[in-house]
Amino acid sequence: MSIFESYKAPQGVLEIGGLPLPRLAERAGQTPFFVYDRSKLGERVALLRQMLAPELRIHYSIKANPMPALVQHMASLVDGFDVASAGEMRMALDAGMPARHVSMAGPGKSSQDLRGAVGAGVTVTLESAHQLEAVERIGRELGVRPRVGLRINPDFQPRSSGMRMGGGPRQFGVDVEQAPALLKVIAERDLDFVGFHVFWGSQCLDPGTVIAAQRHVAELVMRLADLAGDSLEFVNMGGGFGIPYFDNERPLDIGAVGAAMQEWLTPLRRRLAGTRLILEFGRYLVGEAGLYVCRVLDKKVSRGETFLITDGGLHHQLAASGNFGQVLRRNYPVAIGNRMDSGQTETCHVVGCLCTPLDRLADNVVLPAAEIGDLFVVAQSGAYGRSASPSAFLSHPLPVEILV
Amino acid sequence: MSIFESYKAPQGVLEIGGLPLPRLAERAGQTPFFVYDRSKLGERVALLRQMLAPELRIHYSIKANPMPALVQHMASLVDGFDVASAGEMRMALDAGMPARHVSMAGPGKSSQDLRGAVGAGVTVTLESAHQLEAVERIGRELGVRPRVGLRINPDFQPRSSGMRMGGGPRQFGVDVEQAPALLKVIAERDLDFVGFHVFWGSQCLDPGTVIAAQRHVAELVMRLADLAGDSLEFVNMGGGFGIPYFDNERPLDIGAVGAAMQEWLTPLRRRLAGTRLILEFGRYLVGEAGLYVCRVLDKKVSRGETFLITDGGLHHQLAASGNFGQVLRRNYPVAIGNRMDSGQTETCHVVGCLCTPLDRLADNVVLPAAEIGDLFVVAQSGAYGRSASPSAFLSHPLPVEILV
Repeated sequence: MSIFESYKAPQGVLEIGGLPLPRLAERAGQTPFFVYDRSKLGERVALLRQMLAPELRIHYSIKANPMPALVQHMASLVDGFDVASAGEMRMALDAGMPARHVSMAGPGKSSQDLRGAVGAGVTVTLESAHQLEAVERIGRELGVRPRVGLRINPDFQPRSSGMRMGGGPRQFGVDVEQAPALLKVIAERDLDFVGFHVFWGSQCLDPGTVIAAQRHVAELVMRLADLAGDSLEFVNMGGGFGIPYFDNERPLDIGAVGAAMQEWLTPLRRRLAGTRLILEFGRYLVGEAGLYVCRVLDKKVSRGETFLITDGGLHHQLAASGNFGQVLRRNYPVAIGNRMDSGQTETCHVVGCLCTPLDRLADNVVLPAAEIGDLFVVAQSGAYGRSASPSAFLSHPLPVEILV
Repeated sequence: MSIFESYKAPQGVLEIGGLPLPRLAERAGQTPFFVYDRSKLGERVALLRQMLAPELRIHYSIKANPMPALVQHMASLVDGFDVASAGEMRMALDAGMPARHVSMAGPGKSSQDLRGAVGAGVTVTLESAHQLEAVERIGRELGVRPRVGLRINPDFQPRSSGMRMGGGPRQFGVDVEQAPALLKVIAERDLDFVGFHVFWGSQCLDPGTVIAAQRHVAELVMRLADLAGDSLEFVNMGGGFGIPYFDNERPLDIGAVGAAMQEWLTPLRRRLAGTRLILEFGRYLVGEAGLYVCRVLDKKVSRGETFLITDGGLHHQLAASGNFGQVLRRNYPVAIGNRMDSGQTETCHVVGCLCTPLDRLADNVVLPAAEIGDLFVVAQSGAYGRSASPSAFLSHPLPVEILV
């Protein structure tokens, strides 16, 4: 339960943003709801700025959580946004982020995505020769010289942990071996080449892996820099920092990551004096700032096992049900939000309201003995929750999101 | 590719409802889209009526596909609807299904769900003592005598295959051991007890398992019938019939299932002369009637492997990406819809447009050599597609659904 130790719980009632959970439920107007905590968002960005080299720019990848108020708040904390669609791009610009600090990535950008980005002056991170041709054509049509970056599929694989997004054959970006030829084409066209994007992985908790990946990326950028001419405004070195979800996981030691940076940062800084060096984070910035809250609708015993049945479920928090990218289902950190100091516990299963055995929020978990009406809380729900869940499944009401 | 053999494809272009795929894309107004085929829906219901005992009623479980036009069409084909939320209930009634042929199931029915069902005169399938109390209270408030069924968690487990939803400890229904006591309470209250609901599993392709499960359910109903009094309007024996998704799967032999029914049907019919016997299907009725269609946005080779990048993805068809209930990812049946007779093939990966390695629609699949602009088709997409996918993920446009 260590994740919940970062919250106050006077009289055993969880407090977020200074309000006790039952009052937050009233503010939300319903259960289930997601609550995101501004102070935790700010603390996370501040921690990164303190532990990492101060000249590194921090970008937020909106896909992790596109709630408009949260995006607006993030705009005041970070140095840029990464977007993955025209829809996310509109949110980024609506939040006041200048177009030149917004870049659009994605292996399959539609014509609407590309027109939106070129029209708005956002950087299009090219991921194929076809995208290059399409962007140049759109630029001509609109009378705009597009700002383009190049996403590189690196020639190394992170050695362990998390989700690999680079190395080997990939749909993302262009293989580094193909980059010189593409850069030559870009230089000949009506395009402003502004930067590289190298995204090696995601949700990594092992500092050794992160350190090695960042070193590889830095080496790769040094190799490519000569080909890019003098116009290299930025290098986006990706992110990859993970957050702990499960009992056996420990937070990433970013102190170690920060300390190891000087090794590659000094030569890179020397070689690319005017270039912004960017780290891009999604889940790492917002994942731990959010809770998913639902209400216990029923409690029953079936053949000796106790079930808490909630009004939430996988239609709101798919990843917590174990159905999004996990091979083995494991419990997210959970609590009974109005019984944080209860002495009497019981072993139970917590399920959602859906008519499917997939709808499990916690299996065989020891919790304070709960009653109907209690508030069940899933932590680490600030990223890839609401927007990454099948909210139309079974036609229940949508969850509410609040930012406190 | 045998699943595609049930479609015409003159000049190699897939035809659905008499229209070639490119014209359907124009009708849809965009890619990606889902197309559902009325004739296949009708044929499937007709097949069931032919192969199973004619006195069995067929109900459609709306959760499999809640597209309003499809629900409306199903209302003309089947004898009743099962709904899992107030939202689904409104669709059922809007489609003209009489309230007494609509039942609401679900382990976690909210107060709104229960009020809706009692108010509308829909049968509430009780799944706990708490639901019983809540329904009686709502009935008193509304001055309505609620129609209630009882969902039974059986005391057998289907022996193999598919998804188990009954037997052992479950959040669904009440254990059959608890049923006598609950039926006694129901009889004493202001409630009309109208039927039993026994749902043992789902997506089962083994006829032996289905036959054994139906026999068990029939025995269970015989045991319970004495306790139910004379008012047993219906017994919903569940469904469980699966459809084949993967290469190693064969269609369920429903001839064998139908033939084996007489063994339990004759005594059940004798014992429960006036009772409607219902089989309930979702996926089995609609799953094979739908295709998911997206467009090839890009094609590239990364380190010797070919990727087709589409404008679709897991945000529309989560199950086809292997992220919904599957342990191992396997390819759904797929095709290039405008190259059905192409001689030249290639091995490729087909991915969606999302910036995540989870977004895979086919791995290492042999397809006609495709080009940008081609239409990629995922079959068996009529159930748990659009509504069971995280459509807000990455803020791309929603898919369109059409019924032809």
